[in-house]
Amino acid sequence: MRKTGGYAIGVDLGGTNLRAAAIDREGRILGKSGGKTNLKEGREAVIEDMITAIRALRDQFGHETLAGVGVAVPGFIDLQNGTIVGSNNLPQFDGYPVRDGMSARLGAPVILENDANAAALGEKWLGAGRDVDDLILLTLGTGIGCGAIVHDVIIEGEHGHGTECGHILIDPSPTAPICSCGKTGHLEAFASATAVVNRTRELLAAGKCRAIAERMAAGETLNPRLIAALAHEGDAEALDIILETARYLGLGIVTLLHTFDPSVVLLGGAMTFGGQASPIGRRFLQRIREEIRERAFPALVEKVSIRFAALGGDAGFIGAAGIARMVCRRDRG
Amino acid sequence: MRKTGGYAIGVDLGGTNLRAAAIDREGRILGKSGGKTNLKEGREAVIEDMITAIRALRDQFGHETLAGVGVAVPGFIDLQNGTIVGSNNLPQFDGYPVRDGMSARLGAPVILENDANAAALGEKWLGAGRDVDDLILLTLGTGIGCGAIVHDVIIEGEHGHGTECGHILIDPSPTAPICSCGKTGHLEAFASATAVVNRTRELLAAGKCRAIAERMAAGETLNPRLIAALAHEGDAEALDIILETARYLGLGIVTLLHTFDPSVVLLGGAMTFGGQASPIGRRFLQRIREEIRERAFPALVEKVSIRFAALGGDAGFIGAAGIARMVCRRDRG
Repeated sequence: MRKTGGYAIGVDLGGTNLRAAAIDREGRILGKSGGKTNLKEGREAVIEDMITAIRALRDQFGHETLAGVGVAVPGFIDLQNGTIVGSNNLPQFDGYPVRDGMSARLGAPVILENDANAAALGEKWLGAGRDVDDLILLTLGTGIGCGAIVHDVIIEGEHGHGTECGHILIDPSPTAPICSCGKTGHLEAFASATAVVNRTRELLAAGKCRAIAERMAAGETLNPRLIAALAHEGDAEALDIILETARYLGLGIVTLLHTFDPSVVLLGGAMTFGGQASPIGRRFLQRIREEIRERAFPALVEKVSIRFAALGGDAGFIGAAGIARMVCRRDRG
Repeated sequence: MRKTGGYAIGVDLGGTNLRAAAIDREGRILGKSGGKTNLKEGREAVIEDMITAIRALRDQFGHETLAGVGVAVPGFIDLQNGTIVGSNNLPQFDGYPVRDGMSARLGAPVILENDANAAALGEKWLGAGRDVDDLILLTLGTGIGCGAIVHDVIIEGEHGHGTECGHILIDPSPTAPICSCGKTGHLEAFASATAVVNRTRELLAAGKCRAIAERMAAGETLNPRLIAALAHEGDAEALDIILETARYLGLGIVTLLHTFDPSVVLLGGAMTFGGQASPIGRRFLQRIREEIRERAFPALVEKVSIRFAALGGDAGFIGAAGIARMVCRRDRG
């Protein structure tokens, strides 16, 4: 009989990086591994890499005490069939039976979870949501992901599309920018890294943002990190871009507050402009809070905490390990 | 010992009407009573009327078999303290211990629930949501209420403000109309009966909507019912007002789909322009669906059903009785 008191393995299958960790029931990270996601070599190569990473951890920490394996993936999950559906980052996996294939090869239970949902679970287990029952995590990056935990349950949605809050509507104007999903007016089209870069390009085309133009002419890449660096150096136009992004996020969060009434909203992902450690990150957060105060019920504004996530890029595999432990244990009664 | 297999009493405490019914475990309405909500005579008079209605039903259907009493109220509920908080319709009840006071007088368990949440539970139990696990109900009236049931659980929110979806943001423009809550850009300020009347008044002030003006000059009251009647008679401007309202609702529902990914979205309340039985109601619904198709993930648009609620004004007390049965049973283990 397999002991459930041992550890679980969490895998974060990103479009760029593939990371795995063995985590015990107290949340201690026993061991980690990481590498690139070999998408160019095809789906089988990526699955092979995951299997290899998992087997290495299992060999190290024991076959008998492995409770299960969780895999966080950037895409919608068909929970019933254990497949990835409609992932922009992993199109080769569309409809492929990842869960059952991996489970058969490993001889261990495997569970898939959307990456933002996994990160939300990770933050709740070991990160910035440890002290609350309900939280919403927005992951700000190329796109905007979201995970919502309500009464200790992740909102999965009836068809695996729950809390795709990058696609909540914040502007009905027909001239609103087009989202990655092809529709207009969605939050992601205003406040993702892609949106920030697009908006900056428009400003550059209009002859504005000279400081950014100079750095680009010197060979730097236009991205939120460059904009944050310039804002940090005192460039007002760079700061304006960041504060406008914050305003849009505030609009979206108003809707989330009035919908979920959570204890906490966490901001994670790569695009937090330095986060709590940086004066620019703190200005960004302050501007988000101001917009929320302008638009939301005062009773909620007073009670909710809007803050940065704590686990960075580890949140996905931590949450994946956490859900593997929960679900695989539940499945066995 | 009280038998739990009997019946529950549901009360719908509205700003205008006070209704109560005894409902058995199979959902049969054993008996009903109804009257006005005597707000002018004060809080105690209203509570007295509720107690009288409940006692009359209990005398008729038995003390021993009453599982519990549920009361649907138009306001936020402090679930822990059993109080009504910040209700525009029932300001006299703010902070008053309604639940415990009624429970002590009745010698029976009493539970409070927000009216839109109760209506959502009612539709799920006996109405248009009987066939699904997850649903969202929008109640369209003076304001816009919302109840969301996810995995069989109502989203209450961490501070009793869950799914106040009348206040999701649909327009960030600084010139957007002001909502009943005092903030701007919320759905309710665009698509409630109040909003429809306000928008029509603006059109009248600009010399438009002659047919409506004539009916008002003949003594009729400006309300959604009049607008629907004129649209039914072929007045294009009246129909435009209805279709614009539908468009705004569609924008709000896009956000709800991308947030909850439900099986069903139900439209209930007094302002459904005749609902499924009326050609105008069906045009209204069709326009809502068109806007959603324009703005939401095709995979979701394909799967979700947007339709009218089925129970009308009975949904509140049916849901209140349903939750009394569920919660009072749960409390007793």
